Amino acid sequence: MTITITAFERSPDGGKGLARDTRVRWALEEAGLPYAVRLVSFQAMKEPAHLSLHPFGMIPTYEEDDLGLFETGSIVFHIAERHGGLLPADADARARAITWMFAAVNTVEPPILDLVTARIVESDKPWAQERMPLVQERIRHRMNQLSARLGEADWLDGGFSAGDLMMVSVLLRLRPSGLLDEFPRLAAYVARGEARPAYQRAFAAQWAVNGPKA
Amino acid sequence: MTITITAFERSPDGGKGLARDTRVRWALEEAGLPYAVRLVSFQAMKEPAHLSLHPFGMIPTYEEDDLGLFETGSIVFHIAERHGGLLPADADARARAITWMFAAVNTVEPPILDLVTARIVESDKPWAQERMPLVQERIRHRMNQLSARLGEADWLDGGFSAGDLMMVSVLLRLRPSGLLDEFPRLAAYVARGEARPAYQRAFAAQWAVNGPKA
Repeated sequence: MTITITAFERSPDGGKGLARDTRVRWALEEAGLPYAVRLVSFQAMKEPAHLSLHPFGMIPTYEEDDLGLFETGSIVFHIAERHGGLLPADADARARAITWMFAAVNTVEPPILDLVTARIVESDKPWAQERMPLVQERIRHRMNQLSARLGEADWLDGGFSAGDLMMVSVLLRLRPSGLLDEFPRLAAYVARGEARPAYQRAFAAQWAVNGPKA
Repeated sequence: MTITITAFERSPDGGKGLARDTRVRWALEEAGLPYAVRLVSFQAMKEPAHLSLHPFGMIPTYEEDDLGLFETGSIVFHIAERHGGLLPADADARARAITWMFAAVNTVEPPILDLVTARIVESDKPWAQERMPLVQERIRHRMNQLSARLGEADWLDGGFSAGDLMMVSVLLRLRPSGLLDEFPRLAAYVARGEARPAYQRAFAAQWAVNGPKA
Protein backbone atom coordinates (compact mmCIF):
# COMPACT_ATOMS: atom_id res chain seq x y z
CA MET A 1 0.00 0.00 0.00
CA THR A 2 1.38 3.38 -1.05
CA ILE A 3 -0.13 6.48 0.48
CA THR A 4 0.18 9.81 -1.33
CA ILE A 5 -1.17 13.07 0.01
CA THR A 6 -1.21 16.52 -1.54
CA ALA A 7 -0.03 19.74 0.09
CA PHE A 8 0.56 23.35 -0.95
CA GLU A 9 3.62 23.87 -3.11
CA ARG A 10 4.13 26.81 -0.75
CA SER A 11 1.75 27.30 2.19
CA PRO A 12 0.42 30.85 2.66
CA ASP A 13 1.29 30.59 6.38
CA GLY A 14 5.03 30.42 5.67
CA GLY A 15 5.53 27.22 7.65
CA LYS A 16 3.41 27.75 10.78
CA GLY A 17 1.89 24.32 10.16
CA LEU A 18 -1.63 25.69 9.88
CA ALA A 19 -2.37 24.31 6.41
CA ARG A 20 -4.55 21.25 6.63
CA ASP A 21 -1.98 18.81 5.28
CA THR A 22 -0.31 19.05 8.71
CA ARG A 23 -3.36 17.36 10.27
CA VAL A 24 -3.09 14.44 7.87
CA ARG A 25 0.69 14.22 8.27
CA TRP A 26 0.17 14.13 12.04
CA ALA A 27 -2.37 11.30 11.81
CA LEU A 28 -0.06 9.31 9.52
CA GLU A 29 2.82 9.81 11.97
CA GLU A 30 0.68 8.72 14.95
CA ALA A 31 -0.24 5.60 13.00
CA GLY A 32 3.37 5.01 11.95
CA LEU A 33 2.57 5.01 8.24
CA PRO A 34 5.03 6.14 5.58
CA TYR A 35 3.63 8.45 2.92
CA ALA A 36 4.58 10.40 -0.16
CA VAL A 37 3.65 14.03 -0.77
CA ARG A 38 2.72 15.63 -4.07
CA LEU A 39 3.00 19.42 -3.92
CA VAL A 40 0.36 21.39 -5.82
CA SER A 41 0.46 25.02 -6.94
CA PHE A 42 -2.50 27.35 -6.50
CA GLN A 43 -3.00 27.27 -10.24
CA ALA A 44 -2.89 23.47 -10.52
CA MET A 45 -5.45 23.21 -7.70
CA LYS A 46 -8.10 24.73 -9.97
CA GLU A 47 -7.35 22.47 -12.94
CA PRO A 48 -9.36 19.37 -13.92
CA ALA A 49 -6.75 16.83 -12.80
CA HIS A 50 -6.83 18.08 -9.22
CA LEU A 51 -10.56 18.83 -9.23
CA SER A 52 -11.25 15.20 -10.11
CA LEU A 53 -9.61 14.32 -6.80
CA HIS A 54 -10.86 17.31 -4.80
CA PRO A 55 -14.09 18.88 -6.10
CA PHE A 56 -13.50 22.07 -4.07
CA GLY A 57 -9.98 22.59 -5.42
CA MET A 58 -8.13 22.44 -2.11
CA ILE A 59 -5.55 20.35 -0.29
CA PRO A 60 -5.02 17.85 1.25
CA THR A 61 -6.11 14.81 -0.69
CA TYR A 62 -5.31 11.18 0.09
CA GLU A 63 -4.62 8.40 -2.40
CA GLU A 64 -4.16 4.76 -1.46
CA ASP A 65 -4.27 2.20 -4.25
CA ASP A 66 -7.60 2.83 -6.03
CA LEU A 67 -9.08 4.98 -3.28
CA GLY A 68 -9.05 8.78 -3.50
CA LEU A 69 -10.30 10.89 -0.60
CA PHE A 70 -10.49 14.58 0.22
CA GLU A 71 -11.61 16.49 3.33
CA THR A 72 -9.21 16.40 6.24
CA GLY A 73 -11.65 15.03 8.80
CA SER A 74 -12.51 12.05 6.66
CA ILE A 75 -8.88 11.33 5.80
CA VAL A 76 -7.89 11.41 9.47
CA PHE A 77 -10.84 9.16 10.28
CA HIS A 78 -9.92 6.72 7.50
CA ILE A 79 -6.40 6.43 8.92
CA ALA A 80 -7.71 6.18 12.49
CA GLU A 81 -10.16 3.43 11.63
CA ARG A 82 -7.51 1.19 10.06
CA HIS A 83 -4.53 1.72 12.32
CA GLY A 84 -3.80 1.89 16.02
CA GLY A 85 -3.26 4.91 18.23
CA LEU A 86 -6.03 7.26 17.16
CA LEU A 87 -9.33 5.72 18.28
CA PRO A 88 -10.15 3.79 21.46
CA ALA A 89 -11.18 0.14 21.15
CA ASP A 90 -14.24 0.50 23.38
CA ALA A 91 -17.30 1.20 21.20
CA ASP A 92 -18.75 4.00 23.33
CA ALA A 93 -15.39 5.73 23.81
CA ARG A 94 -14.81 5.45 20.06
CA ALA A 95 -18.16 7.12 19.32
CA ARG A 96 -17.28 9.95 21.71
CA ALA A 97 -13.87 10.45 20.07
CA ILE A 98 -15.60 10.72 16.67
CA THR A 99 -17.97 13.25 18.24
CA TRP A 100 -14.99 15.46 19.07
CA MET A 101 -13.73 15.17 15.49
CA PHE A 102 -17.03 16.55 14.22
CA ALA A 103 -17.20 19.16 17.00
CA ALA A 104 -13.75 20.41 15.98
CA VAL A 105 -14.68 20.99 12.34
CA ASN A 106 -18.37 21.91 12.62
CA THR A 107 -18.70 23.80 15.92
CA VAL A 108 -15.27 25.15 16.85
CA GLU A 109 -13.64 25.79 13.46
CA PRO A 110 -16.35 27.92 11.74
CA PRO A 111 -16.00 30.99 14.03
CA ILE A 112 -12.21 30.63 13.79
CA LEU A 113 -12.41 30.52 9.98
CA ASP A 114 -14.54 33.65 10.18
CA LEU A 115 -11.71 35.37 12.03
CA VAL A 116 -9.21 34.29 9.38
CA THR A 117 -11.56 35.66 6.70
CA ALA A 118 -12.06 38.92 8.61
CA ARG A 119 -8.32 39.41 9.10
CA ILE A 120 -7.24 38.46 5.59
CA VAL A 121 -9.99 38.62 2.98
CA GLU A 122 -11.99 41.50 4.50
CA SER A 123 -9.16 43.45 6.14
CA ASP A 124 -9.44 46.31 3.62
CA LYS A 125 -13.22 46.61 3.89
CA PRO A 126 -14.77 49.68 5.55
CA TRP A 127 -16.37 47.53 8.28
CA ALA A 128 -13.23 45.56 9.13
CA GLN A 129 -12.34 47.33 12.37
CA GLU A 130 -15.86 47.77 13.69
CA ARG A 131 -16.89 44.16 13.00
CA MET A 132 -13.83 42.48 14.53
CA PRO A 133 -15.00 42.54 18.19
CA LEU A 134 -18.16 40.63 17.20
CA VAL A 135 -16.12 37.95 15.44
CA GLN A 136 -13.80 37.65 18.42
CA GLU A 137 -16.66 37.41 20.92
CA ARG A 138 -18.14 34.47 19.07
CA ILE A 139 -14.82 32.67 19.35
CA ARG A 140 -14.44 33.49 23.06
CA HIS A 141 -17.90 32.11 23.70
CA ARG A 142 -16.93 28.75 22.19
CA MET A 143 -13.52 28.76 23.88
CA ASN A 144 -15.11 29.29 27.28
CA GLN A 145 -17.40 26.33 26.72
CA LEU A 146 -14.59 24.12 25.46
CA SER A 147 -12.31 25.11 28.32
CA ALA A 148 -15.05 24.33 30.84
CA ARG A 149 -15.52 20.88 29.36
CA LEU A 150 -11.80 20.09 29.21
CA GLY A 151 -11.35 21.16 32.83
CA GLU A 152 -8.12 19.85 34.29
CA ALA A 153 -7.96 16.84 31.99
CA ASP A 154 -5.12 16.28 29.54
CA TRP A 155 -7.39 15.29 26.64
CA LEU A 156 -11.07 15.71 25.81
CA ASP A 157 -12.20 12.18 26.65
CA GLY A 158 -9.74 9.78 28.25
CA GLY A 159 -6.57 9.16 26.27
CA PHE A 160 -5.36 11.11 23.22
CA SER A 161 -7.51 10.41 20.16
CA ALA A 162 -8.24 11.62 16.65
CA GLY A 163 -10.73 13.97 18.32
CA ASP A 164 -7.85 15.70 20.11
CA LEU A 165 -5.75 15.69 16.94
CA MET A 166 -8.50 17.58 15.12
CA MET A 167 -9.32 19.93 18.00
CA VAL A 168 -5.69 20.87 18.69
CA SER A 169 -5.20 21.50 14.96
CA VAL A 170 -8.23 23.78 14.82
CA LEU A 171 -7.19 25.70 17.96
CA LEU A 172 -3.69 26.21 16.56
CA ARG A 173 -5.22 28.53 13.97
CA LEU A 174 -6.12 30.89 16.81
CA ARG A 175 -2.58 31.36 18.05
CA PRO A 176 -1.47 34.11 15.63
CA SER A 177 -4.36 36.30 16.83
CA GLY A 178 -3.36 36.01 20.51
CA LEU A 179 -6.82 34.64 21.36
CA LEU A 180 -5.59 31.17 22.27
CA ASP A 181 -3.44 32.52 25.09
CA GLU A 182 -6.51 34.10 26.71
CA PHE A 183 -7.51 30.53 27.65
CA PRO A 184 -4.66 28.98 29.64
CA ARG A 185 -6.20 25.51 29.83
CA LEU A 186 -6.68 25.42 26.08
CA ALA A 187 -3.22 26.85 25.42
CA ALA A 188 -1.75 24.07 27.60
CA TYR A 189 -3.90 21.50 25.81
CA VAL A 190 -2.58 22.67 22.45
CA ALA A 191 0.98 22.59 23.80
CA ARG A 192 0.46 18.96 24.87
CA GLY A 193 -0.58 18.13 21.34
CA GLU A 194 2.41 19.92 19.87
CA ALA A 195 4.75 18.08 22.23
CA ARG A 196 3.80 14.69 20.82
CA PRO A 197 6.65 13.20 18.77
CA ALA A 198 4.25 12.46 15.90
CA TYR A 199 3.22 16.12 15.76
CA GLN A 200 6.85 17.18 15.85
CA ARG A 201 7.64 14.98 12.86
CA ALA A 202 4.59 16.27 10.96
CA PHE A 203 5.51 19.86 11.70
CA ALA A 204 9.11 19.34 10.60
CA ALA A 205 7.98 17.74 7.36
CA GLN A 206 5.78 20.69 6.40
CA TRP A 207 8.45 23.13 7.60
CA ALA A 208 10.92 21.57 5.17
CA VAL A 209 8.54 22.59 2.38
CA ASN A 210 7.21 25.89 3.69
CA GLY A 211 9.72 27.40 6.08
CA PRO A 212 12.02 30.22 5.03
CA LYS A 213 14.80 28.74 2.96
CA ALA A 214 18.21 28.92 4.62
CA MET B 1 -32.12 -0.24 23.42
CA THR B 2 -33.96 3.05 23.91
CA ILE B 3 -32.85 6.05 21.88
CA THR B 4 -33.62 9.54 23.13
CA ILE B 5 -32.71 12.70 21.25
CA THR B 6 -33.15 16.33 22.21
CA ALA B 7 -34.75 19.05 20.09
CA PHE B 8 -35.83 22.67 20.52
CA GLU B 9 -38.95 23.13 22.59
CA ARG B 10 -39.83 25.54 19.79
CA SER B 11 -37.51 25.85 16.78
CA PRO B 12 -36.65 29.41 15.72
CA ASP B 13 -37.44 28.45 12.11
CA GLY B 14 -41.14 27.89 12.87
CA GLY B 15 -41.17 24.36 11.45
CA LYS B 16 -39.11 24.67 8.26
CA GLY B 17 -37.16 21.61 9.41
CA LEU B 18 -33.84 23.47 9.43
CA ALA B 19 -32.96 22.79 13.07
CA ARG B 20 -30.39 20.05 13.33
CA ASP B 21 -32.64 17.53 15.09
CA THR B 22 -34.27 16.99 11.68
CA ARG B 23 -31.00 15.50 10.40
CA VAL B 24 -30.90 13.01 13.25
CA ARG B 25 -34.62 12.20 12.93
CA TRP B 26 -34.04 11.57 9.21
CA ALA B 27 -31.14 9.18 9.89
CA LEU B 28 -33.20 7.31 12.49
CA GLU B 29 -36.09 7.01 10.03
CA GLU B 30 -33.79 5.74 7.25
CA ALA B 31 -32.48 3.14 9.69
CA GLY B 32 -35.99 2.26 10.86
CA LEU B 33 -35.25 2.96 14.51
CA PRO B 34 -37.87 4.17 16.97
CA TYR B 35 -36.81 7.05 19.19
CA ALA B 36 -38.05 9.34 21.93
CA VAL B 37 -37.62 13.12 21.93
CA ARG B 38 -36.96 15.35 24.91
CA LEU B 39 -37.74 18.99 24.13
CA VAL B 40 -35.42 21.58 25.65
CA SER B 41 -36.02 25.29 26.14
CA PHE B 42 -33.37 27.91 25.28
CA GLN B 43 -32.92 28.51 28.97
CA ALA B 44 -32.52 24.84 29.89
CA MET B 45 -29.91 24.45 27.14
CA LYS B 46 -27.53 26.68 29.09
CA GLU B 47 -28.00 24.86 32.39
CA PRO B 48 -25.60 22.26 33.85
CA ALA B 49 -27.83 19.24 33.20
CA HIS B 50 -27.88 19.87 29.46
CA LEU B 51 -24.28 21.11 29.32
CA SER B 52 -23.12 17.80 30.77
CA LEU B 53 -24.60 16.17 27.68
CA HIS B 54 -23.73 18.94 25.18
CA PRO B 55 -20.76 21.12 26.17
CA PHE B 56 -21.75 23.82 23.65
CA GLY B 57 -25.33 24.07 24.93
CA MET B 58 -27.09 23.14 21.72
CA ILE B 59 -29.35 20.45 20.27
CA PRO B 60 -29.52 17.67 19.19
CA THR B 61 -28.04 15.18 21.60
CA TYR B 62 -28.35 11.41 21.45
CA GLU B 63 -28.68 9.00 24.35
CA GLU B 64 -28.64 5.23 24.02
CA ASP B 65 -28.21 3.19 27.21
CA ASP B 66 -25.02 4.54 28.82
CA LEU B 67 -23.82 6.40 25.74
CA GLY B 68 -24.36 10.15 25.34
CA LEU B 69 -23.38 11.89 22.11
CA PHE B 70 -23.67 15.39 20.69
CA GLU B 71 -22.78 16.89 17.29
CA THR B 72 -25.13 16.00 14.46
CA GLY B 73 -22.48 14.57 12.13
CA SER B 74 -21.25 12.13 14.73
CA ILE B 75 -24.77 11.08 15.74
CA VAL B 76 -25.72 10.41 12.12
CA PHE B 77 -22.49 8.48 11.65
CA HIS B 78 -23.10 6.45 14.81
CA ILE B 79 -26.54 5.45 13.50
CA ALA B 80 -25.17 4.79 10.00
CA GLU B 81 -22.39 2.56 11.28
CA ARG B 82 -24.72 0.29 13.23
CA HIS B 83 -27.72 0.03 10.95
CA GLY B 84 -28.42 -0.53 7.26
CA GLY B 85 -29.33 1.98 4.60
CA LEU B 86 -26.92 4.84 5.23
CA LEU B 87 -23.42 3.60 4.35
CA PRO B 88 -22.33 1.30 1.52
CA ALA B 89 -20.83 -2.08 2.41
CA ASP B 90 -17.81 -1.68 0.10
CA ALA B 91 -14.91 -0.23 2.12
CA ASP B 92 -13.81 2.36 -0.45
CA ALA B 93 -17.37 3.52 -1.17
CA ARG B 94 -17.95 3.78 2.57
CA ALA B 95 -14.86 5.97 2.99
CA ARG B 96 -16.07 8.23 0.18
CA ALA B 97 -19.54 8.53 1.75
CA ILE B 98 -17.91 9.59 5.03
CA THR B 99 -15.88 12.13 3.05
CA TRP B 100 -19.13 13.74 1.90
CA MET B 101 -20.37 13.87 5.49
CA PHE B 102 -17.30 15.88 6.48
CA ALA B 103 -17.46 17.99 3.30
CA ALA B 104 -21.04 18.93 4.15
CA VAL B 105 -20.23 20.22 7.62
CA ASN B 106 -16.71 21.57 7.15
CA THR B 107 -16.61 22.91 3.59
CA VAL B 108 -20.18 23.62 2.49
CA GLU B 109 -21.91 24.58 5.73
CA PRO B 110 -19.53 27.31 7.07
CA PRO B 111 -20.25 29.89 4.31
CA ILE B 112 -23.96 29.07 4.65
CA LEU B 113 -23.80 29.60 8.41
CA ASP B 114 -22.10 32.93 7.68
CA LEU B 115 -25.12 33.93 5.60
CA VAL B 116 -27.48 32.98 8.43
CA THR B 117 -25.37 35.06 10.82
CA ALA B 118 -25.29 38.00 8.40
CA ARG B 119 -29.07 37.89 7.88
CA ILE B 120 -30.05 37.40 11.50
CA VAL B 121 -27.36 38.35 14.03
CA GLU B 122 -25.77 41.18 12.03
CA SER B 123 -28.81 42.44 10.13
CA ASP B 124 -28.94 45.67 12.14
CA LYS B 125 -25.24 46.46 11.78
CA PRO B 126 -24.10 49.37 9.62
CA TRP B 127 -22.19 47.04 7.28
CA ALA B 128 -25.03 44.54 6.78
CA GLN B 129 -26.11 45.62 3.30
CA GLU B 130 -22.67 46.31 1.89
CA ARG B 131 -21.17 43.04 3.14
CA MET B 132 -23.96 40.73 1.95
CA PRO B 133 -22.77 40.34 -1.68
CA LEU B 134 -19.39 39.07 -0.43
CA VAL B 135 -21.07 36.47 1.77
CA GLN B 136 -23.30 35.38 -1.09
CA GLU B 137 -20.40 35.12 -3.56
CA ARG B 138 -18.56 32.73 -1.25
CA ILE B 139 -21.60 30.48 -1.21
CA ARG B 140 -22.04 30.64 -5.00
CA HIS B 141 -18.41 29.64 -5.44
CA ARG B 142 -18.95 26.47 -3.39
CA MET B 143 -22.31 25.76 -5.01
CA ASN B 144 -20.77 25.94 -8.48
CA GLN B 145 -18.11 23.43 -7.46
CA LEU B 146 -20.61 21.10 -5.83
CA SER B 147 -22.99 21.29 -8.79
CA ALA B 148 -20.12 20.49 -11.17
CA ARG B 149 -19.21 17.42 -9.14
CA LEU B 150 -22.79 16.18 -8.83
CA GLY B 151 -23.35 16.57 -12.58
CA GLU B 152 -26.35 14.61 -13.76
CA ALA B 153 -26.13 12.04 -10.99
CA ASP B 154 -28.90 11.50 -8.46
CA TRP B 155 -26.57 11.31 -5.47
CA LEU B 156 -22.98 12.36 -4.75
CA ASP B 157 -21.38 8.92 -5.00
CA GLY B 158 -23.48 5.98 -6.19
CA GLY B 159 -26.56 5.28 -4.06
CA PHE B 160 -28.05 7.52 -1.37
CA SER B 161 -25.84 7.63 1.74
CA ALA B 162 -25.32 9.48 5.01
CA GLY B 163 -23.15 11.86 2.94
CA ASP B 164 -26.21 12.86 0.92
CA LEU B 165 -28.33 13.09 4.06
CA MET B 166 -25.89 15.59 5.52
CA MET B 167 -25.36 17.53 2.28
CA VAL B 168 -29.07 17.84 1.48
CA SER B 169 -29.68 19.01 5.07
CA VAL B 170 -26.98 21.66 4.79
CA LEU B 171 -28.24 22.89 1.40
CA LEU B 172 -31.80 23.16 2.73
CA ARG B 173 -30.60 26.05 4.89
CA LEU B 174 -30.01 28.01 1.68
CA ARG B 175 -33.56 27.79 0.43
CA PRO B 176 -35.07 30.72 2.39
CA SER B 177 -32.48 33.05 0.79
CA GLY B 178 -33.38 32.03 -2.76
CA LEU B 179 -29.77 31.01 -3.42
CA LEU B 180 -30.52 27.31 -3.73
CA ASP B 181 -32.80 27.89 -6.71
CA GLU B 182 -29.95 29.56 -8.60
CA PHE B 183 -28.47 26.07 -8.95
CA PRO B 184 -31.07 23.84 -10.63
CA ARG B 185 -29.08 20.61 -10.27
CA LEU B 186 -28.63 21.22 -6.55
CA ALA B 187 -32.25 22.26 -6.10
CA ALA B 188 -33.31 19.00 -7.79
CA TYR B 189 -30.85 17.06 -5.62
CA VAL B 190 -32.36 18.57 -2.48
CA ALA B 191 -35.86 17.80 -3.76
CA ARG B 192 -34.85 14.15 -4.23
CA GLY B 193 -33.75 14.06 -0.61
CA GLU B 194 -36.97 15.65 0.58
CA ALA B 195 -39.01 13.13 -1.43
CA ARG B 196 -37.63 10.18 0.51
CA PRO B 197 -40.27 8.68 2.81
CA ALA B 198 -37.83 8.75 5.74
CA TYR B 199 -37.30 12.50 5.27
CA GLN B 200 -41.05 13.02 5.05
CA ARG B 201 -41.56 11.26 8.36
CA ALA B 202 -38.72 13.25 9.99
CA PHE B 203 -40.12 16.52 8.68
CA ALA B 204 -43.63 15.70 9.88
CA ALA B 205 -42.32 14.82 13.34
CA GLN B 206 -40.54 18.16 13.76
CA TRP B 207 -43.53 19.99 12.21
CA ALA B 208 -45.78 18.52 14.89
CA VAL B 209 -43.59 20.30 17.44
CA ASN B 210 -42.70 23.50 15.60
CA GLY B 211 -45.35 24.25 13.01
CA PRO B 212 -48.03 26.87 13.60
CA LYS B 213 -50.61 25.42 15.93
CA ALA B 214 -53.98 24.86 14.31
